[in-house]
Amino acid sequence: MGPTSQGGDSGSGEERLIARYFRPLATHPGALGLIDDAAVVRVPSGHDLVVKTDAIIGGVHFFPDDPPDAVAKKALRVNLSDLAAKGAKPLGFLLSIALPTVIGDEWLEGFSEGLRADADRFGCPLFGGDTDRTPGPVTISISAFGTLPHGTMVLRSGAKPGDRLVVTGSIGDAAIGLVLRRDPQAARRWGLDPAMQEYLLRRYLVPEPRNAIAEALRRYAHGGMDISDGLAGDLAKMCRASHVSATVEVARVPLSEAARRALAAEPGLVGAILAGGDDYEVLASVAESEVGNLAAEAAVAGVTTTDIGTVGIGEGKARFLGRDGTELVFVRPSFSHF
Amino acid sequence: MGPTSQGGDSGSGEERLIARYFRPLATHPGALGLIDDAAVVRVPSGHDLVVKTDAIIGGVHFFPDDPPDAVAKKALRVNLSDLAAKGAKPLGFLLSIALPTVIGDEWLEGFSEGLRADADRFGCPLFGGDTDRTPGPVTISISAFGTLPHGTMVLRSGAKPGDRLVVTGSIGDAAIGLVLRRDPQAARRWGLDPAMQEYLLRRYLVPEPRNAIAEALRRYAHGGMDISDGLAGDLAKMCRASHVSATVEVARVPLSEAARRALAAEPGLVGAILAGGDDYEVLASVAESEVGNLAAEAAVAGVTTTDIGTVGIGEGKARFLGRDGTELVFVRPSFSHF
Repeated sequence: MGPTSQGGDSGSGEERLIARYFRPLATHPGALGLIDDAAVVRVPSGHDLVVKTDAIIGGVHFFPDDPPDAVAKKALRVNLSDLAAKGAKPLGFLLSIALPTVIGDEWLEGFSEGLRADADRFGCPLFGGDTDRTPGPVTISISAFGTLPHGTMVLRSGAKPGDRLVVTGSIGDAAIGLVLRRDPQAARRWGLDPAMQEYLLRRYLVPEPRNAIAEALRRYAHGGMDISDGLAGDLAKMCRASHVSATVEVARVPLSEAARRALAAEPGLVGAILAGGDDYEVLASVAESEVGNLAAEAAVAGVTTTDIGTVGIGEGKARFLGRDGTELVFVRPSFSHF
Repeated sequence: MGPTSQGGDSGSGEERLIARYFRPLATHPGALGLIDDAAVVRVPSGHDLVVKTDAIIGGVHFFPDDPPDAVAKKALRVNLSDLAAKGAKPLGFLLSIALPTVIGDEWLEGFSEGLRADADRFGCPLFGGDTDRTPGPVTISISAFGTLPHGTMVLRSGAKPGDRLVVTGSIGDAAIGLVLRRDPQAARRWGLDPAMQEYLLRRYLVPEPRNAIAEALRRYAHGGMDISDGLAGDLAKMCRASHVSATVEVARVPLSEAARRALAAEPGLVGAILAGGDDYEVLASVAESEVGNLAAEAAVAGVTTTDIGTVGIGEGKARFLGRDGTELVFVRPSFSHF
């Protein structure tokens, strides 16, 4: 700083970093090649804009030694998952990333490659961003944007008594994957083969958001949300928002073969499965007459759906019933930082 | 975690924190009272959406002991400043905040009060957010949204040879305020009275974005950006984006009385003033015939504007000329983290 004889308007290190790693992701014309202060976007006529922000932090939401491309994918996908559950089509995203000084080119290379692959796959280009140094851990905050025809967003408050509860994919894999990541010996105790271990670890590392069925959800679901903090707690949130009650038959909750085997060996895992979080599946409340239609369209998109219970009248209570009809109650029905 | 006899679907600590501190800011109906996964917003017909994200980090962009209401205002205003420079009207914002465990209710109370005051003042309600714990410093990432009539965004690439360079307010106050914050003894050396000290410190602590003149900028400016990383570096960015050159007469750069006094006592501060950053004023490139119109409309809105130089043909070079016509050159023309 200060006037000297040194030259200097060829651009800062930050500009070069952005040009190298992030400009290739800014394929939307409104991103202006990331050389402006802001991006400018049109929302199609007759459509609403859906906006969401979610952050992931090293040592909190991912492990510091996770591969950078997986970290990037997780950061984007946790947001894409919300757009999916709301029935919105991805439009683009903003990235705010804070990096400790130990992060160098190799990490950024992997990170930007992972982000680029998902931006392409999900049709969700980078609109703009902010890059800072931090004395803390890697902190990645993404804001994702989607669109849908006016007034058609699938609301958390839309569940109706008489509906069936439907979930996509399988529940609990990521939570078991996290247990396994912390305690690799558990694989042996649970009798998991290497493919099963890899599957569970992967489900924690990189979620698989259900954007392929967003349109079907808009057509068939009364209410919905993504399952990020655990099925038990998230269902309770939907019940409170919708002023309904819900009853889940635990035996109907879809489990992967790997989760089933782990649970058989260690029945106590049922808590992690139902309340552990990081599923990034969709929980939807669907009229009984439409459950089959949703399942059929989802199947075409390669997504399984499972009817796990019912919505009833009531005020916000979610019950989980075991095979013998007794209720499971959770100390901590969902993940919370506070 | 795990099934027990304990009760539990009355909501997590995170939900209670959001309800207490952030729900009062979510006055837009599309924010759905912060009880959904996402917000849903309409962009007025014939309008574009302008989106921007910027983060501030404790120990990097603000001091850990800064008052929490000031931190909140700074976090929002650094984004509002970009909307202003682009000519956009604020629509709302998303907040992603990561908090160390030492942050308690008192801090959050002050933070949410500051944020609420500015959300009201600038007509920019909270659409949604994300709250996490971090082992690092307080990290606040905001994405701000604005709207403007289609195709009217003021671009960084819009400066034209023959334009005049116009800046709002005064330049360098925040950079000097930062010097003063780190070295309170400097006030005596510079001969500043207490009001001047307070003024400069305040200019660093809480910027004053120029949203009041956004519409006038759209009407009269060919190109523009906000000055956040220092006038010298930011002007160079505008020159590169617009494929023009620029010449600033340093003596015309508007300084506050406090900055003028500090500079008189310590001429070396010229570097901090012109390249230090944190101004959050607007830099605009305006046809000579429109400079008076912009100044008149800005004055009505309570904002001063000053003509500091010219735009010429060339490829990205910004020159700063002293009184005797010699060029000032900066080692580090703008703030950069990398």
